[in-house]
Amino acid sequence: MKQKKLITLLFFIASCSYAQFENDSIALRKLYDYYLTESKCYKNLEYLATKIGGRISGSKAAEKAVLWAKQTMLEAGADTVFLQPCMVPHWERGKTERCKLTFGKPQIEKQLKACALGSSVGTPKGGIKARVIEVKSFDELDKLGEKAVKGKIVFYNVFMDPRHIYTGEAYGESVRYRWGGASRAAKYGALGCVVRSMSTAQNDFPHTGNMGYDTTISKTKLPAMALSYVAADVLSESLKKDPELTLTMETDCKNLPEVLSYNVIGQLNGSEKRNEFIITGGHLDSWDNGQGAHDDGAGIVQSIEILSAYKKLGIKPRHSIRAVAFMNEENGLAGGKAYALAAIQNHEKHIAALETDAGGFTPRGFNVDTLNGLYKSVKKWEPLFRPYFVDRIDPEGGGADISPLEKQGVPCIGFEPDGQRYFDYHHTADDTFDKINKRELELGAAAIGALLYLIDKK
Amino acid sequence: MKQKKLITLLFFIASCSYAQFENDSIALRKLYDYYLTESKCYKNLEYLATKIGGRISGSKAAEKAVLWAKQTMLEAGADTVFLQPCMVPHWERGKTERCKLTFGKPQIEKQLKACALGSSVGTPKGGIKARVIEVKSFDELDKLGEKAVKGKIVFYNVFMDPRHIYTGEAYGESVRYRWGGASRAAKYGALGCVVRSMSTAQNDFPHTGNMGYDTTISKTKLPAMALSYVAADVLSESLKKDPELTLTMETDCKNLPEVLSYNVIGQLNGSEKRNEFIITGGHLDSWDNGQGAHDDGAGIVQSIEILSAYKKLGIKPRHSIRAVAFMNEENGLAGGKAYALAAIQNHEKHIAALETDAGGFTPRGFNVDTLNGLYKSVKKWEPLFRPYFVDRIDPEGGGADISPLEKQGVPCIGFEPDGQRYFDYHHTADDTFDKINKRELELGAAAIGALLYLIDKK
Repeated sequence: MKQKKLITLLFFIASCSYAQFENDSIALRKLYDYYLTESKCYKNLEYLATKIGGRISGSKAAEKAVLWAKQTMLEAGADTVFLQPCMVPHWERGKTERCKLTFGKPQIEKQLKACALGSSVGTPKGGIKARVIEVKSFDELDKLGEKAVKGKIVFYNVFMDPRHIYTGEAYGESVRYRWGGASRAAKYGALGCVVRSMSTAQNDFPHTGNMGYDTTISKTKLPAMALSYVAADVLSESLKKDPELTLTMETDCKNLPEVLSYNVIGQLNGSEKRNEFIITGGHLDSWDNGQGAHDDGAGIVQSIEILSAYKKLGIKPRHSIRAVAFMNEENGLAGGKAYALAAIQNHEKHIAALETDAGGFTPRGFNVDTLNGLYKSVKKWEPLFRPYFVDRIDPEGGGADISPLEKQGVPCIGFEPDGQRYFDYHHTADDTFDKINKRELELGAAAIGALLYLIDKK
Repeated sequence: MKQKKLITLLFFIASCSYAQFENDSIALRKLYDYYLTESKCYKNLEYLATKIGGRISGSKAAEKAVLWAKQTMLEAGADTVFLQPCMVPHWERGKTERCKLTFGKPQIEKQLKACALGSSVGTPKGGIKARVIEVKSFDELDKLGEKAVKGKIVFYNVFMDPRHIYTGEAYGESVRYRWGGASRAAKYGALGCVVRSMSTAQNDFPHTGNMGYDTTISKTKLPAMALSYVAADVLSESLKKDPELTLTMETDCKNLPEVLSYNVIGQLNGSEKRNEFIITGGHLDSWDNGQGAHDDGAGIVQSIEILSAYKKLGIKPRHSIRAVAFMNEENGLAGGKAYALAAIQNHEKHIAALETDAGGFTPRGFNVDTLNGLYKSVKKWEPLFRPYFVDRIDPEGGGADISPLEKQGVPCIGFEPDGQRYFDYHHTADDTFDKINKRELELGAAAIGALLYLIDKK
């Protein structure tokens, strides 16, 4: 009898969870159907990328993007949309951006495709003309020291290592030369620095991105530029033939006073736990040289789409759901910090925070924090996601904009699309809407919508 | 003592398989490093796609492709390369390909982007001008019958269903209208037929592809064309406004006598089992309108790359390994059939046959036949592939070119790259080399090389 009771109980549990699985399956199928047939994320991204375009913090375009995000969230059916103020850096690229090689006898001049790095100071008018010292690492620079470096332009010729399957790892290894190269070069008396673009595409687009000055290393702020992959090849080859060649760098970028800007937040009110939040966000600002289509227009429109999906399908979330368009991810994280601060001030409890900032590519999976058992729950849902080619639920997730929340103990999730093409376009003039595939973008949005649905219901 | 023995044995087995796992991991890492840093598949594809271009069976370009494949396999380090003869159909598109809409009062003319379907007969000179009957299915056509259809052009306006996650399923549902639409329309006295392109891209490229005449349905061979996605929209919308509008179809494509052509086979001789074979193949022919970059230049260069990889890394396969460039997959399968026939005639034992014909996109996994326990073995290797984002080992695999081998009981494998973009380019003028991402192509080649390595070793 005892055994029979146990079997009955097990059967009951098993059939309960099977029924649950069935219900969740049906709900996910409905969500995916919506995203693949009715969603507006592709059209929304077309507008953001092609009508507003590049929108670096503090720019007119960023202002327009704030108004656009507010309007788009309202149209998507948010119960409430509000702006959350933050002070953001205001860096301007200016109009001059030249990098010229002078080499050989008789002297030949060659223009190289290059761009100023974000936050860099500009050069004096007329530019800096100097010999070039090429290094493959900070160690090499340190070994060469002042004797070899002083009065020269330092060229950090560091490739993204193609052997990494996860391209983000290769980026992580090489980006420190972009970020910290100028101060390290200044320490030894260099006049400027150029870096090989962090690029997986072997083409002629230079990749910008933020840099910083570490005044503990050097008080001198050197102008810094990125060379395209091709230009870096040309410079390196030319140096082999003529080590005495000179490079002329000229930029008129500058750092202006901080500007008031905003995160834009669209909310669906929770039916049971109104002051508990599940959020999905991307960053509204983008580099100025392209259209910010993959980085991170894609994440913005994917996040906004959850509002429409819930409204259209009549889903009433238990917790409040937010789409957050963070401002200033690219050069400061002011938006991410302001959001986390406000969360504390307003006593908002965050159940989970998801970030989508890895491009609008075909979904691979999610990286999920182990905090509060979130990873365990999501891992359990793997079979629900498998029909949708969301195959990887891995531990430890997050993203730049939600990292201040994570520090407060909020379990964070990074949406992970396929990363093979991301660093082809990242921070370049080539990050444009025509690089977006409609289905891939929609499948990403659907995966996010489905995951937040399950988290809300559990 | 008995228990201790058992534990020792288990420990021995466990440590053996762990050592095995370690060794396999190291071997795979070496293979991937080769493919991501030294492989020539991208350069090879550039040549095949841009210098030889579209290469439909029986064409001069297909002849050039045969010579190129032979040379490329030799350069890759094949122990032997040979041509395997097969008679292939010879269809030519000709020079005229027009589709014109005439509608409204006063009459307006509009050219629609359209192309002849492979194997279709041409129209009489001057074209066919007739009213149009739009249908969404064969059922609808059957219900309309001769009364509504006779003397008209049938327009199969069938979309690929975007709700399918696996795009191949949506293709499978709609392609029967391309394949069999003409004879079904002829049965009711139609004069011609046009189909909406099987396309996931909502653009103006018409998608060709093979069709056939079923003389058991009708003895009349109607000319058949594909409209671009946009053109099909225009036609459908115009019909709503003016059901009396006329369409003029004009083509001068034709079917010519069969031509002698070849499969090209590059072999690495097995060190232990020379007459047992593991093969990877794609098809060398492609549609004439594009460059056959994804379909299936990618599969060809990925297959050839295994020869170089083994040579460069000094891998001596136990079984003979073959890269097979099949001829005539697109409109006949003559090469696939010839290969399977020769395998029987030459008493060749095939351990496994892999086909890569789904584009040069980022790898997702393999579909593996359960025959001879192959699926079970491959499934066991999932942890080896996971670091490489090869996440899906699913049962039941194969491909068109290896299907005749499968009928002989050879366990077959289909390489499965991500399929979201495949039907954007498939069979169009837009299937060009610039749509290939170097890393994605290489990762596919590496996954195939790694899998064949494990199968050979087991």
